[in-house]
Amino acid sequence: MKVDGNIERFYQYSFPMQAVLVTCHDDEHNKTNVITVAWHTPISVDPPLYGISIAPKRYSHSIIEKSKEFVINFVPYHLVDKTHFCGTHSGRTVNKIKETELTLLSARRVKTPLIKECYAHLECKLFQSLKIGDHTFFVGQILSVEVDKELFKNDLLKIDKIQPLYYIGGNKYTTIDKTKKREF
Amino acid sequence: MKVDGNIERFYQYSFPMQAVLVTCHDDEHNKTNVITVAWHTPISVDPPLYGISIAPKRYSHSIIEKSKEFVINFVPYHLVDKTHFCGTHSGRTVNKIKETELTLLSARRVKTPLIKECYAHLECKLFQSLKIGDHTFFVGQILSVEVDKELFKNDLLKIDKIQPLYYIGGNKYTTIDKTKKREF
Repeated sequence: MKVDGNIERFYQYSFPMQAVLVTCHDDEHNKTNVITVAWHTPISVDPPLYGISIAPKRYSHSIIEKSKEFVINFVPYHLVDKTHFCGTHSGRTVNKIKETELTLLSARRVKTPLIKECYAHLECKLFQSLKIGDHTFFVGQILSVEVDKELFKNDLLKIDKIQPLYYIGGNKYTTIDKTKKREF
Repeated sequence: MKVDGNIERFYQYSFPMQAVLVTCHDDEHNKTNVITVAWHTPISVDPPLYGISIAPKRYSHSIIEKSKEFVINFVPYHLVDKTHFCGTHSGRTVNKIKETELTLLSARRVKTPLIKECYAHLECKLFQSLKIGDHTFFVGQILSVEVDKELFKNDLLKIDKIQPLYYIGGNKYTTIDKTKKREF
């Protein structure tokens, strides 16, 4: 039987949602920030576009508006503590890279660095910035993709070797069940 | 060590991605269609908005452009066969509801029906239709949310009772590992 859901918390029905770490670089203060994002999706194949939804009050929002670029870093489950920290603190008051001891690596096509401990990275320049409702949907054009060497073969991600992090609301996270798989 | 990823297949780095079933109703032919969508995300809290990215060639694309509404149905893992069918056939040539024997239920606020076998439903009217790259990003305003009675308590989804379906590329699907959970 169907009953009324909670429209104010409609986003909970999408849980578990993959949590990614988005890096951006504040040129003015020469500081790289990192924000945990659960509202994100691929958008277009050609050109290759990826969208992230960020609230205007976020520090990363003001950075991306100026820098016009960002990097999406795909997060392994074992980084759950650091990812939770990045999702619950503001880069305005804390240096999240320093606090989490995440390692930055130079990107190839953008000034924003990658997070070494993540397993795949999409280097994006801002393609469109869309105000939609109370968030900004930043659409990035992917200029370069970098991945951990051992996860990638014949142009394909070795899906069995990754264990991505998923957010399930509140302060809770989970991951994928590799024992359950169905192939057609 | 980081190596070049495949920029043409950048979306594979988001795998596993939750697969949802989107229903829409073709008034002209009095036919409800259903499409499997992996590119989707919440967009805004107030107003409550949800975005889905659909290629213009899809039958559902032409329907939503006319009907200006759709329903997002969240899919349990045991519907993997039916969901794969809906993702690999076109409603132009096949009646997917009939072939999959999925059950339609009337929605409350839109004309498009829900899929009974799914566990949560977002009834959406079209808020914005954005051409972004080679896809259309349909942004729906959520008018009503309906969920299975046993999955919902005190305004919260019982996350431990759901086992959503995730797409991992090619013809492969998986689900969440309930034994792995981290709470802060």
